[in-house]
Formats: sequence, C-alpha cells, structure tokens
Amino acid sequence: MTELFVRTLREDPADAEVPSHRALVRAGYIRRVAPGIYSWLPLGLRVLQKIEAIVREEMHAMGAQEVRFPALLPREPYEETGRWTEYGPNLFRLRDRKGADMLLGPTHEELFTLLVKDLYSSYKDLPLALYQIQTKYRDEARPRAGLLRGREFVMKDSYSFDVDDAGLEASYQRHRDAYIRIFDRLGFDYVIVKATSGAMGGSASEEFLAIAENGEDTFVRSPGGYAANVEAVQRPLAAAQDATGVPAAHVEDTPDSPTIETLVALSNDRFPRDDRPWTAADTLKNVLVMLKHPDGSRTPLAIGLPGDREVDLKRLQAAVEPAEVEPFGDAEFAAHPRLVKGYIGPGALGMGGDPDAGEDGVEPGAGVRYLTDPAVVDGTRWITGANEAGHHVYDLVCGRDFASDGVLDVAEIREGDPAPDGSGPLSLARGIEMGHIFQLGRKYADALGLKVLDPNGKLVTVTMGSYGFGCSRAVAAVAENTCDERGLVWPRHVAPYAVHILATGKDASVLEFATRLAEQLDAEGVEVLLDDRKASPGVKFNDAELLGMPTSVVVGRGLAEGVVEVRDRATGSRDDIAADAVLTHLLGILQG
Amino acid sequence: MTELFVRTLREDPADAEVPSHRALVRAGYIRRVAPGIYSWLPLGLRVLQKIEAIVREEMHAMGAQEVRFPALLPREPYEETGRWTEYGPNLFRLRDRKGADMLLGPTHEELFTLLVKDLYSSYKDLPLALYQIQTKYRDEARPRAGLLRGREFVMKDSYSFDVDDAGLEASYQRHRDAYIRIFDRLGFDYVIVKATSGAMGGSASEEFLAIAENGEDTFVRSPGGYAANVEAVQRPLAAAQDATGVPAAHVEDTPDSPTIETLVALSNDRFPRDDRPWTAADTLKNVLVMLKHPDGSRTPLAIGLPGDREVDLKRLQAAVEPAEVEPFGDAEFAAHPRLVKGYIGPGALGMGGDPDAGEDGVEPGAGVRYLTDPAVVDGTRWITGANEAGHHVYDLVCGRDFASDGVLDVAEIREGDPAPDGSGPLSLARGIEMGHIFQLGRKYADALGLKVLDPNGKLVTVTMGSYGFGCSRAVAAVAENTCDERGLVWPRHVAPYAVHILATGKDASVLEFATRLAEQLDAEGVEVLLDDRKASPGVKFNDAELLGMPTSVVVGRGLAEGVVEVRDRATGSRDDIAADAVLTHLLGILQG
Repeated sequence: MTELFVRTLREDPADAEVPSHRALVRAGYIRRVAPGIYSWLPLGLRVLQKIEAIVREEMHAMGAQEVRFPALLPREPYEETGRWTEYGPNLFRLRDRKGADMLLGPTHEELFTLLVKDLYSSYKDLPLALYQIQTKYRDEARPRAGLLRGREFVMKDSYSFDVDDAGLEASYQRHRDAYIRIFDRLGFDYVIVKATSGAMGGSASEEFLAIAENGEDTFVRSPGGYAANVEAVQRPLAAAQDATGVPAAHVEDTPDSPTIETLVALSNDRFPRDDRPWTAADTLKNVLVMLKHPDGSRTPLAIGLPGDREVDLKRLQAAVEPAEVEPFGDAEFAAHPRLVKGYIGPGALGMGGDPDAGEDGVEPGAGVRYLTDPAVVDGTRWITGANEAGHHVYDLVCGRDFASDGVLDVAEIREGDPAPDGSGPLSLARGIEMGHIFQLGRKYADALGLKVLDPNGKLVTVTMGSYGFGCSRAVAAVAENTCDERGLVWPRHVAPYAVHILATGKDASVLEFATRLAEQLDAEGVEVLLDDRKASPGVKFNDAELLGMPTSVVVGRGLAEGVVEVRDRATGSRDDIAADAVLTHLLGILQG
Repeated sequence: MTELFVRTLREDPADAEVPSHRALVRAGYIRRVAPGIYSWLPLGLRVLQKIEAIVREEMHAMGAQEVRFPALLPREPYEETGRWTEYGPNLFRLRDRKGADMLLGPTHEELFTLLVKDLYSSYKDLPLALYQIQTKYRDEARPRAGLLRGREFVMKDSYSFDVDDAGLEASYQRHRDAYIRIFDRLGFDYVIVKATSGAMGGSASEEFLAIAENGEDTFVRSPGGYAANVEAVQRPLAAAQDATGVPAAHVEDTPDSPTIETLVALSNDRFPRDDRPWTAADTLKNVLVMLKHPDGSRTPLAIGLPGDREVDLKRLQAAVEPAEVEPFGDAEFAAHPRLVKGYIGPGALGMGGDPDAGEDGVEPGAGVRYLTDPAVVDGTRWITGANEAGHHVYDLVCGRDFASDGVLDVAEIREGDPAPDGSGPLSLARGIEMGHIFQLGRKYADALGLKVLDPNGKLVTVTMGSYGFGCSRAVAAVAENTCDERGLVWPRHVAPYAVHILATGKDASVLEFATRLAEQLDAEGVEVLLDDRKASPGVKFNDAELLGMPTSVVVGRGLAEGVVEVRDRATGSRDDIAADAVLTHLLGILQG
C-alpha cells in the first residue's frame, strides 16, 4: 500500500449516481476523464483483466479463435449494411486528413463478416467461431452510472458462422453454455432472459442480466420459468369476441372529461351499463408520438390501448428501433387538423382512411399509422374519442366500426400480469445487461455477400450468430451486485488481490510478521496486498473494507499472544487464528 | 491447421512495400482495413500478445504499475499544453453529439500528469512509474509498410515521476535497463542510439532501433562507440580562423555559374587561389525554406552551409518541429524582392539587417531568419551569392563581413564524417524505431501544475520521464529483421507456436503419430501447431516456411523406419531424429 498507485476518497464523487460508481471512484479503481469515459487505475485494471482472462479461457475452451479489429473504421462497410445511417447520433464520426469518412466502431458485425468472406469459401470451413476483446465507442445521449453506460468501453464480441439453421442453433447453444460458465465463474447473481434484438437485426436472442436495483433493464419472471426483458415480452392477442347485440356506435356529449378517470366517472353516471360499472379498461386511449428515423425523416404514429394501461416508453423505443420516439407536439397537432387533442378516436387514424367513408373517402386526418394493443381485437367494444372536443363515442366495436393497421404491444407490463406462455403471474425486477446472445441469421452475410459452396457445389449464404459480453461493464455490474455501504465486496475470481494483510500497531514484529506472511503467500502464487502504511488501524480497516478484497488478515496486538484475525469481507466473519497456522488456513480458504 | 482461422496467399499483396508486410499478409497474420489500419488474425494476435506479455513482465519487474487511459479524449488537457494545435493534421479530431471537441490520443503525457496530480501530493509518494499498453492514433500523412507506420497502433507508454533531477536520471536508467531486457528477450538485432526528443519536448533521449534495410530511420555509429539517430547528430562548431590578410570582399561578374560545380570551375579559371584550387567546400550555399507553424502561420528560413553538403530534410524537419518544412516558391521570392534566386548572399539575410548598412539601415530583404552550419565560424572565408543575378562575392569573411542569427546543423551526415565525440569515422545504417526513452523534465508538470511538497514543505514541480515502446510495430520490426524470401522466421519467444508438426503422406499412422506428438507436447505446456490438412507435402512445407515457426517436425515416409525430421527455420538445418526420441529432443531444443 505504500507503493500501490491508489488513494481512497472520503467523499462520494459529485457525479456518481449508483453505489458501484461511488465505491469504484472512492476506492481508487477508476477516474473520470470525460462524460462516460474513464481511466483505469491499477486496482480497477486488475479486475478488468481478470474478467477478460475468464472470458478468454471460456471462449478458447469452446473453440472460438481470437482476432482483433481496429476501432477506427472506414465508412464503407457500414454504408453497405445501412448502419452508417441507422446509428444516427450514437455513432462517433470523424474525417481523416484526406477527408475520408470514418467512425469509431460501436460493434463489428460488418468487419467479422468481411474477414470471413476474405478467407473462407467452403462449407468445409464451417462452423467457425471468432471473437475479440476490444474497445468500443458509442456516443450515448446520456452516459450514466460510471462504467455501466459509458461512451468508451471494452467488449468481448464473438460471431459464429454456419452453413445452415441447425448449425446456427448448435453454435448458439455452445455460446450460451460458455456464457453460463463465464457468469458462474464471475461469482454473482444473474438471470438469463428473452430479449429483443434491437438494431442488430436477427431473431432469437437472450440477455444475461446482473440482478441490480439500479439496473437500467426491467425484466419479468414467472413461477413456471418464463423470463424476459420487459422489452421482449409479447402479450398474446386477446380472444375475439362476439359483438352481436352491441348497439350501433353513438357519439355522446361528455363535458369535463379530460382524463380517463373523469370519463369513466361520467360514463357510469350518465350512461351506466346494465351488467357492471364501466372501468378504465373499457376505454380506448389513443396515444400519439412522432418517430424520428435515422435518415432524419419524421412520421406520426398512433397507439391504441386500453385506458387502464400506459405506454411503456422503453418497450415502445425497442419496438420502433432504429427510429427514435419524440413527442407529438402542438406543431404536429396543427399539421393534423382532424386530430382533436384529448378526443382522438380511431375514425381519424389509420393508413386506410375512415372505413365508413367509402372507397375514395380518405378524410383529412387519416394517414397516421394506427397500431393497437393485443387487447384490441375483433368484437371488443370501446368508449373512445369522437374526434370532436367534449365528445366521446360509445359502443365502438373493433372490426365492425374501426380497424387498425396492426398490433403493437408496448403497454406497460404490470406485476401479476399473466406470463405469455401461461406459466403464471409475472413478477418484475431490475437488472444490468452484461451479455447478449443473438441468432443474427443472414442479415449481414446477405448485405455483404458472405457465401460459401455447399456440399453440392452451390453457393449458399452463411448464417451468423452474434454474442456480446461487456467486460468493462461487468466490473461495475459485479461491483453493483455485491457492494455494501462500506465499499466493494469482490467475488474471489475477480478480486484484484486474493488476500489483504493489514499490519496494525507500532510493534516492529507486527510489520515483520505481516511482511513474511505476504512473502509466503506470494511464493504460493497468491496475490497479496500488504498494508504497510504508517496509518491508524481505523484508517486501514476502513480502506480494507472500501477496497473489498475477499479475505483480509489483521496482524496486530494479538500477535503477542500468537493470534491474528482473518476477516471475510462478504460475510463479515472474523476468526482468530493461531499465527503459525494462518498460512495453511488461508491456503485452505483459497482452495475452497 | 484444419481449424485455425488462417489462409496463406500465393501472391504478394498489391500495397505491400516491405518484406515484413508482404510476409505478414501472405501468411495470414494481418489484414488491411483502411490505409494504416489493420485487423489482427489469430496468428498475428498471438505474436502481439507475446510481445505485450514480455513488456508487461519487464515493466512489472522494474516496479512500474499498469493503468489504462481512454483513447477518446477531451480537448482541454491538450489545449493546456499547446498540443491540440502543435499536432496539426496528425491528430484525429472529432466532435461528440453535444459538439464537444475530442481527439484520439496519439500519446498520453497530459493524462498521466493529471492523474498523478489527482492522486499524489508529497515527495514521499515518489518515485513513481506508471505504464499502459493501449491503442493509439495518429493521422499519418503517409501511412506505410503495414504495421511499421500505421494510423491505429498499440503502444506501451510509461512515465516516471521524480522530485528532482537525480531521481529522474535514476528512473531513466531503470527504464533503460528494462528496455534492454525486453529487447534481448525479443531475440533480434537492435541498437541504442542518441535521439532528438521531437514534439515531446525534454532533453536527453535515446532510441532503440531494429536494424533493417527498409527502416525509416538512418543512424550512425563510430568504432569508438558513438551511436545516434542521424537526426540527433550534433556536429561540433569548427575552430575559428584568423582572417588577417584576407583581402576585402569583392563582387565579381560570374556568368553561366548557376550551380556550385560551374561556380567552382569558373572561380578556378578566372580567380584562382595561390595555395590550392577552389573546391565546393569554399562556397557558401544559402538554402531557403518556409516553415509552417502549427497555428497555420508561415515564416521564411535561410540556411547557410558549405556548398559541398546538402540539407538533410529529415534532420531539418526534426530541428524545426513542431513546424513543418515547405518549399520556398516563386510567390515567396516575389514577396522578398532582395532575394535573387541562385545568387542569395548573407547580405540579404538575417534578422538584424545588413551589418554593413549601419545602425538604422535595415534594408529590404532582411528579416529572413538566417542560420548557418557549424562549419561557418568566425574567420572562415567564402565565395557566395552577391544578391545580384550573375554575380558572386569572394573573400566574404564570417564575423568580419557578415553574421548569422545562430547555428543550425542540418547538413547531411556522410559515411566517414568524424563522430562528434572524436570516437572515429561514422558509418551509416538504417533502422526501425521500436522504443524511445526521454528525460522529459518539467514541461508537462509545469503546464498542468503537477507539484508535490518537498521535505521542507515547499511545493516543487515534479520532473518526468517518458518511455515508449511500439508493440504492434515490434511485430513488423521483428518480422522485418528476421524474415527471408521464403517467409517469416520468428524468434522463439515471440513465435505464435513453438513447434509446427507436419503430417505428410497418406498412411494413417503418420497422422496418428503426429497427433500423439502434438498432444504430448501440449501436455508439456508447449504451444503446437499441427498441420493435419489433406494437402500435398509441398504445400505443407511451403506454408510452414511462410508461417515461420522456429521448429518444425516433418512426420512422413521416414516414420516407417522410425525416423522423423526436425527442421530449424532460422538456420535451415534438418535432422533425422528417432521417432521415439523426438519428444525429448524437442523439449531439449525448447529449454535451450
């Protein structure tokens, strides 16, 4: 500790939002250089390198070969796949001295695809798995939480290449198994959930999440084993209903009913149902947003969903990627005069025009794409806006009186909602995305022409899998998952040092014994941190808890009676151990 | 080899200028992505990682601690030291989505300095040595020779921090010793030469060069042990001479003498000397250039040197850094009417005006900074331009008839020139800069306010050393230094695999034996590459020579008689070894 390049801080850094970030900065593991951009100090770098080593070992064990691509890349391959545009402002772009467009790679699908195309040409060369551990860049709108969402970060990304779908499935499974081994070795709580594939394209995908209160991702689980990122939950379509006997739709004067709550109250008061009271679930709320597309164009979107649910913005965002969601403001209302704020009904929405208006009767206000919740199915009966201020329409039946342009399931998922697979009620929790595995399919191979000859001498397009793991994010995610109010609590396999020896007290024999113990452990291949500073025991205890090595040994007053104390950071246990037995004791702990 | 992600090429890549580049691409070690930007394939990455591991071990052994800075950096620290401007077009610059100026770090003096300032405050914390192995960026005007001069490259850069000059000297020496160990372990020819410190600032510096015909650097050596990059050679001032008795300067009509050669011939013809003929060394040539400064401004510079020497552009460039040298063209002559092309003499040069023109007699044409060669000293007598077309001045004596604004030693160094330290005649050779160690001094600590309390409680500025090593360049430099016309020839410590086993011939026992030998070596911790392809022996032999593992084992027809062949790639030796003794034989080679 007298030599180690570290200083612990008493105060929390001003910009730290989550416990792991506070602890990593206070403990001298990382330092901020710019928003979302960090320097690694020796302790932090040791954790990162241990995580990288675990990842390398498991990737190697499953037969993946390591390569390394540049971070600074030419525009062309990203142009060919459309991602130069799709990434929008999330991409760091620059021009070189000759004016050529370049980018800092956020992910390397294009480069992997082109490299395999360059080297391989036959089905005999496949399956192939390649990976790299490499620094990536993403110009996040809101970098946050230290390493959890940075603009420069270290990822392991791997890709599988197969000649057919069965091969991809097998490659995916091998990667999934390797990920499980990696996560088990990291030594903390995680969960595997179904995921959306986002801007990557592709079909099947799963995320490995660290369970953490401060995580950005919300996921759901059911008692029957369903688990999904909330963005990936697909509620099934409700059953169609028989609307025979539902009266014709009728517009009513509904003054002072600007909210769902007031509308329900007014409806029960003035237009009561026979069988039961109206509830918010009987109303059809139409929410308007603007979609900003990567090419800069903007189009309106209307979402119809039962009035007892809100649109979940993250689910909506995931569903419309790569477009971005923006508010539908006064200027947009002005541009769509048929849309009456607060009273928007299906009649003014949809690409097909008003179905009641006949073949050529596209009325003003139509042309807004209208997508509806899975609960809005044929035969369902709604109270909704009449496209006239102060008026709502009753007994508007889906399929009879209106149609939508399609289904969009972006309503919030609630605790207790049924799992889509019928495996019971969902519970919600939060997590940090640490890994994401995809069956990409042929999107990139198609765009970039990666084909091989099959056994019949026919050219076939290769199918790919993509498997990401956030190495630098893992440092923070493990810290977030394990730390407590006193500081970091590293699992054994990722701790910068296995044992932290504290020499406390002024007696020369204390430092002597502590130093000898450190040397003995070192000789056994154990990584040891020795606190040999001239500092008070209190300072050393606090620093040891903040730095978070799994095991510490306090050599102090007890030494005179031949005793030292062994502390376990995670459990808080403190055991007096005979000084002459402590080496064996520690080796036992480390092997256990 | 049936699984390894590699393909060898028969043809040289079109853009490869040097043997190492050709071999690394043909052997499937690297692939070009953009000018000066490469991907590492598995074999190439293994070499890079081995070099990195050697560097890490030696840096750790000398007590340096590893950190890692971002590559994407904010402008501010580089603004404070002036390098945002100084780097000119060599810096990759970009703006983030919020419009903040950023750069891709070409080197990290600023970040290291600020980090130490952040953590440390006392002389007790020093000495300190920090290092990183990290990807750097430089927008080279002419990226060339593959990895030798790239735009994205991996460097080890370390910095020492000391409270005083003696400390810096000791830190420098420790680094120098560590570098010698690193270079010895890499296993190829290198030389340590005095160097200039370039844009880094600072004083003492040395370079570690790989000796290579295609190297960009020229260096000199003397039999007495002097060694310097040609840019760093400082010729001593010639001895002043007694010019008593030299006649007054006189202008002569010298028609048809546009070159030094014709001028010397005419002089010997029309104005012969008594004692000996005139030679080119009696003429004073005044060379004009423009300096483009990092802020964009341009100033003229005149260099006076004996007519028998040329200006060495690289020495000039090194001397005027961070300015860039540009030609002095017609537009510049038009702007300086006193400068008569081909007949420029000292009278029209210099910042002090014409010394003959009296106190207030600054004539037009003066104001061009005039620096002269170390041979141009008081009492030396010259034939030079008379600032009038067709005329030269004779018997112009330095110190009597003209003065310069200072000394500039940028004349070409020639084979046989005396070493500046009197250690004998210089010989010239070429090399590749692989390492550069500097005594930076207080430049960055001053600019960024890195001070610590000394033992008397006084704030003192820290003095720094800077120590670079090009890890990715080393891959190419070692290859360049060792390869031959058949391919790569890796030294043992950096080879991707220690042993390459070739199973040749169709007999099943061959592949069986080869596979068993590979497994046995693997069990002994030896890295083995097994050529198990269905290919002809000729293809396998050629590929083995191209790939360049130090030792290969040919298992083939001889196996029936119980013999295999062990080949040494570097010496070309081929030894028949009893099959049942080959494991022991190989382990013996590897331990030796």
